Amino acid sequence: MLSEILTEVGSLWIVFVAAVVSIVAAFYIKKGVDKADPGNEQMVIVQGYIKNGADAFIKRQYTTLAYFVAGLSVLVGITYSYDAPTEYIPQVPGWLMVISYILGSVASGWAGWLGMKVGVDANAKTAAAANKEDRDLGMNDAFNVSFYAGCVMGLLVTGAALGGVWALYYFTSNPRVVLGFSFGASSIALFAKAGGGIYTKTADVAADIVGKIEQSLPEDDPRNPAAVADNVGDNVGDIAGMGADLFDSYVASLIATMLLGLNIYGEHTFSAFPLIISAAGLFASLIGIYLIVNAKKEDPNDALNRGTYLATGLFIGTAAIVTVIVQFTSPDAVSATRLWKTYGAAVFGVLCGLVIGITTDYYTDDRKKPTQAIAESSEQGHALNILTGFSYGLMSIGPPVIGIAIAMGVAYALDGVYGVAMASVGMLAIVGTIVSNDAYGPVVDNARGIAEQGGLDEEVIAVCDRLDSAGNTAKAITKGFAIGAAALTVLALLYSFVQSGHEIIPDDEVISLDIQQPGIMIGLILGVAVPCIYSAILIFSVDKNAQIMVKEIRRQFEEEPGILKGEVAADFERCIDIATKGSLKALVIPSLLSIGAPLLVGLFMGIPGLSAFLAGSILSGFVFALLMSNAGGAWDNAKKYIEDGHLGGKGTLAHAASITGDTVGDPFKDTAGPAINTLICVMSLTAEMFITLFGLMPHSGLGFF
Amino acid sequence: MLSEILTEVGSLWIVFVAAVVSIVAAFYIKKGVDKADPGNEQMVIVQGYIKNGADAFIKRQYTTLAYFVAGLSVLVGITYSYDAPTEYIPQVPGWLMVISYILGSVASGWAGWLGMKVGVDANAKTAAAANKEDRDLGMNDAFNVSFYAGCVMGLLVTGAALGGVWALYYFTSNPRVVLGFSFGASSIALFAKAGGGIYTKTADVAADIVGKIEQSLPEDDPRNPAAVADNVGDNVGDIAGMGADLFDSYVASLIATMLLGLNIYGEHTFSAFPLIISAAGLFASLIGIYLIVNAKKEDPNDALNRGTYLATGLFIGTAAIVTVIVQFTSPDAVSATRLWKTYGAAVFGVLCGLVIGITTDYYTDDRKKPTQAIAESSEQGHALNILTGFSYGLMSIGPPVIGIAIAMGVAYALDGVYGVAMASVGMLAIVGTIVSNDAYGPVVDNARGIAEQGGLDEEVIAVCDRLDSAGNTAKAITKGFAIGAAALTVLALLYSFVQSGHEIIPDDEVISLDIQQPGIMIGLILGVAVPCIYSAILIFSVDKNAQIMVKEIRRQFEEEPGILKGEVAADFERCIDIATKGSLKALVIPSLLSIGAPLLVGLFMGIPGLSAFLAGSILSGFVFALLMSNAGGAWDNAKKYIEDGHLGGKGTLAHAASITGDTVGDPFKDTAGPAINTLICVMSLTAEMFITLFGLMPHSGLGFF
Repeated sequence: MLSEILTEVGSLWIVFVAAVVSIVAAFYIKKGVDKADPGNEQMVIVQGYIKNGADAFIKRQYTTLAYFVAGLSVLVGITYSYDAPTEYIPQVPGWLMVISYILGSVASGWAGWLGMKVGVDANAKTAAAANKEDRDLGMNDAFNVSFYAGCVMGLLVTGAALGGVWALYYFTSNPRVVLGFSFGASSIALFAKAGGGIYTKTADVAADIVGKIEQSLPEDDPRNPAAVADNVGDNVGDIAGMGADLFDSYVASLIATMLLGLNIYGEHTFSAFPLIISAAGLFASLIGIYLIVNAKKEDPNDALNRGTYLATGLFIGTAAIVTVIVQFTSPDAVSATRLWKTYGAAVFGVLCGLVIGITTDYYTDDRKKPTQAIAESSEQGHALNILTGFSYGLMSIGPPVIGIAIAMGVAYALDGVYGVAMASVGMLAIVGTIVSNDAYGPVVDNARGIAEQGGLDEEVIAVCDRLDSAGNTAKAITKGFAIGAAALTVLALLYSFVQSGHEIIPDDEVISLDIQQPGIMIGLILGVAVPCIYSAILIFSVDKNAQIMVKEIRRQFEEEPGILKGEVAADFERCIDIATKGSLKALVIPSLLSIGAPLLVGLFMGIPGLSAFLAGSILSGFVFALLMSNAGGAWDNAKKYIEDGHLGGKGTLAHAASITGDTVGDPFKDTAGPAINTLICVMSLTAEMFITLFGLMPHSGLGFF
Repeated sequence: MLSEILTEVGSLWIVFVAAVVSIVAAFYIKKGVDKADPGNEQMVIVQGYIKNGADAFIKRQYTTLAYFVAGLSVLVGITYSYDAPTEYIPQVPGWLMVISYILGSVASGWAGWLGMKVGVDANAKTAAAANKEDRDLGMNDAFNVSFYAGCVMGLLVTGAALGGVWALYYFTSNPRVVLGFSFGASSIALFAKAGGGIYTKTADVAADIVGKIEQSLPEDDPRNPAAVADNVGDNVGDIAGMGADLFDSYVASLIATMLLGLNIYGEHTFSAFPLIISAAGLFASLIGIYLIVNAKKEDPNDALNRGTYLATGLFIGTAAIVTVIVQFTSPDAVSATRLWKTYGAAVFGVLCGLVIGITTDYYTDDRKKPTQAIAESSEQGHALNILTGFSYGLMSIGPPVIGIAIAMGVAYALDGVYGVAMASVGMLAIVGTIVSNDAYGPVVDNARGIAEQGGLDEEVIAVCDRLDSAGNTAKAITKGFAIGAAALTVLALLYSFVQSGHEIIPDDEVISLDIQQPGIMIGLILGVAVPCIYSAILIFSVDKNAQIMVKEIRRQFEEEPGILKGEVAADFERCIDIATKGSLKALVIPSLLSIGAPLLVGLFMGIPGLSAFLAGSILSGFVFALLMSNAGGAWDNAKKYIEDGHLGGKGTLAHAASITGDTVGDPFKDTAGPAINTLICVMSLTAEMFITLFGLMPHSGLGFF
């Protein structure tokens, strides 16, 4: 068996091993979380509410998704069974593409669901672990529980993604089959990221407006009827949604590079190489995780960041090792120079990801100038807080843009468009670490909430606060990674789309994407508008749902004054219900937009117009994702900076203004900003999936233009 | 003489006549404003403060500009005297280009200065005209004074622009000479728009924060030390700055079309045709103005909009007449079909401009859903006001993007890139009307201020309020026009730049702007970031200067309690000084950016990379200009909607929240948003001006990539 794989596509066994190790490790770590102390009775009750709310949401979401996936399966099946005029189409039979598509959605859905389950469980367990006489020990244990929970998500996502891609590629030897898997993962991400993002911010914004601003209740106060919905939101949006988002980018970067590798070089080695490089990244993440949990934690913040740096450094080594293996075992006569140049592009990618992450951190860290300037401007009121935050958000676009430009230029110089694609693979190679760090955040955030609602000591809450703050900083770096990687990934998808386009048009025609042609410019400008409209729809949904929830909370406080006195329990269910129904209903239009827009543009403007449309959406998507994520992060931390006692602390005008900024930033950074990544990825994959339909259009001219 | 012009470039005499008629009409109307009643003693005093403040600012600004223009003159002179290797460069001698450049800056500066002078004078005179027993008569007279003042600006801008372009083209028969004129006009616009925009919003924001929010003073209250600076700002930013901005776009659309006409068709008729079409637009504007001031004004709002519709309708007729004249008098053997297709592109342009304007109006009109929804969300506090406004701003990008895409597609189908350029000329043909309506706004805004400070009746203030509100709606439509026209203009400049590029590279090479090439994608992504950084710098400047002014106002109130009681006059000079110095100092970096960025990109990445860079800046510039202008306008009107008594009116949480939105929107809509138009125009003109420098770079490859 082993020798067969070796003969067929070189060193692909490494990928299989990595996927298995990753999933085994996830289950091993999960057992550790399962065994942890669940806390006192009140905590168990609150935990139960959160668990039920999250389960109810996921159940309804997955039911809706099932219909959506079924519908798209039919479309996929028909498209791939279509008797098209070129020899390109029969490469993948319809039934196989449908299986691959469903497999992708199931794999992503499974990893997201199981990862979230462990994350939810760890909410109360982290609080319980922090609740120790010895504060240092409490900090250490609580960090480990929450970090373990994050790792389960990180390893499940990486393992399921890599395993699925490996299986499909191994059994069919056709990267195009993997495309269906990627499209399936994207379908999940579309719902999980946008739906979860709307859910979490509906509850967060509403809880802040009535609880914090009107009634001056502290964060996570159990008297607030939206408190549980807020906690549920952290789990479904920030854990499940984020996991599905990165699963999506990860698989998309792999498929784009695999398709390019085969199209350009015609050798399976170059289509298998991104998988092997990703396996190397997975090992690097695993070693990094092992070293972190076994190190002494003086500062949780440093621990998390050290993990990212470690994984990056280790990846450079492990990737070199697998490159050597590929070089000496590949059955194709590959050039060693080309292989090492490709390795260089991947390493350059991960380093650029790190640089982008660090600049993101600069703009959102409360020890740096931007966040402090936002806090200071809050002393002049709400408006200047908003203006300063928004301006720094705009400013923060500069460094990553230069970073991506350099990454693109160097990667292209190393190995053409395949090099650019490999840079995206490199950036996402340590996705295990990125997801682990990201999922850690909401776990400790909720641990704090449960500690508050479970009546634990102020000092325990302070421990949770410190862990939470570390999560925010770690998140800044990983978020930069995620946005940069998404940009490069969709760029690679764009290149791959154009390459595929070349295969379905007659040999004597060339696809030109010259912006001097009006169809290209029109495609670009239409594409640029889509992330804006998409963001607007998502923010509106949060806005509208939050207003409904605000009214419900006010109604409860008015009709039952006992709630505010702490004598009567608030009706959490109603708020959970509003968030669940509202966020799923809100998904209809954005989902139609992300699938429908590329289909329409492709049908009317052909392959060149659609390529330009995708390029336009990448350009504005990158910019708006950075603006929204970074402004949102900075507003959040400026508020925390003031709450830490700076500039007069709580109760001042500066504090009120900083809460406004934080509330505005909530849907920016946790709903619209990250959902843009999913949007551009889904649109690019839709284009590639249904490219045969657009081949029916005139293609050397520009569709109707 | 007449026959000579006719022989040389067809019907160019029409342009000369139009320019002369326009300037004569401006002076004739100015005399009417000069004769109007200046109001009571207190009004004359306030008026004097405003006049002195505006004069001081303009004097300092023009002094700084003189150095800037002198420096660039040297660069222009050297570049055009350079002994370059292609036959393209010696077309224009250095000294001639410098003269043209200086002429452009002087013409724009003169029109802006004189127009503003009349506008400032009309501030008090409008208030005085409104101060009549018969309210209807007062409304009518006040409307006429302020509208006349606006017309002076509109006609001076059109006349000076058209006259300057005519003269240079007539005496040299070389459109490239006109390029210098356009670059000169852009230099002025860069300072006038960005500098004036920072000035006006520094004062406005600071006055609102301390006056309205902290001390609950009404708008324009004379006790507010920033009140006069606020009024000065309206004049230097919204009149002088706006005039320079449209002068810039107007000339740029002409030069781009002239260059393309000559390059593509090699016939002077097609290089003269845009001028003649613009002359037709000028006549249409003049007739429109005449009809409006002589009609009975039931509703000032309808009167202004009727003016725009009238001018549009008339333009379709006058343009047809001049096209007939050109068809039968042109010395070139031009094809009538081509001529009428070009006419069609121009007419299609102005219609699309109207559609864009009307959708802009939808998003900012307080009788429509978006603005009312923003007002309603204000009841839930500051954050939801911001989120709703921002979302509608994002949404408002959709219709104009579709409008521009259709305009581009149809214009291109009619007559290629020359057709696209002609669509921009068509959109700007009625610039006389656009500037008149735009300049009317700040005049009545200030009339209201002076009425308040001059102690006039509440009813007179109400008349001014009604006139002001009409100005806001008219502004929405003209703003849509301006942004759409700027986008098409820079697109035309881009096409012209690439055409020029083709002339300076060897014959066997082609400039490819295919986005599959990394240099093009890098150029695009760098270009996309520039309007973001530029906006951030401008908003920061407002933010920073406003904070300084806020401290100064608070200081005055604390040290002299008599000011708030109305017993002691506030020290206006200090605030004026802060705004003047702050805004000029803040111009250094944005100016360097807009001239330096295209130079650097061109030198490093060659003509293709720079073309892509410009395209990127057009894409994001268009989107951000729409977002900021429309969100800002909607916030402003949502506040007015509440102040009109809806949702509880003044003093409620909704009102406080709506003031926050208005304050955030101020630098969005009046500083950053419109300055982006200038930025992309200046960058495109810089590229075209210094194209010979970039020709030294490798051009068939992509510079360094």
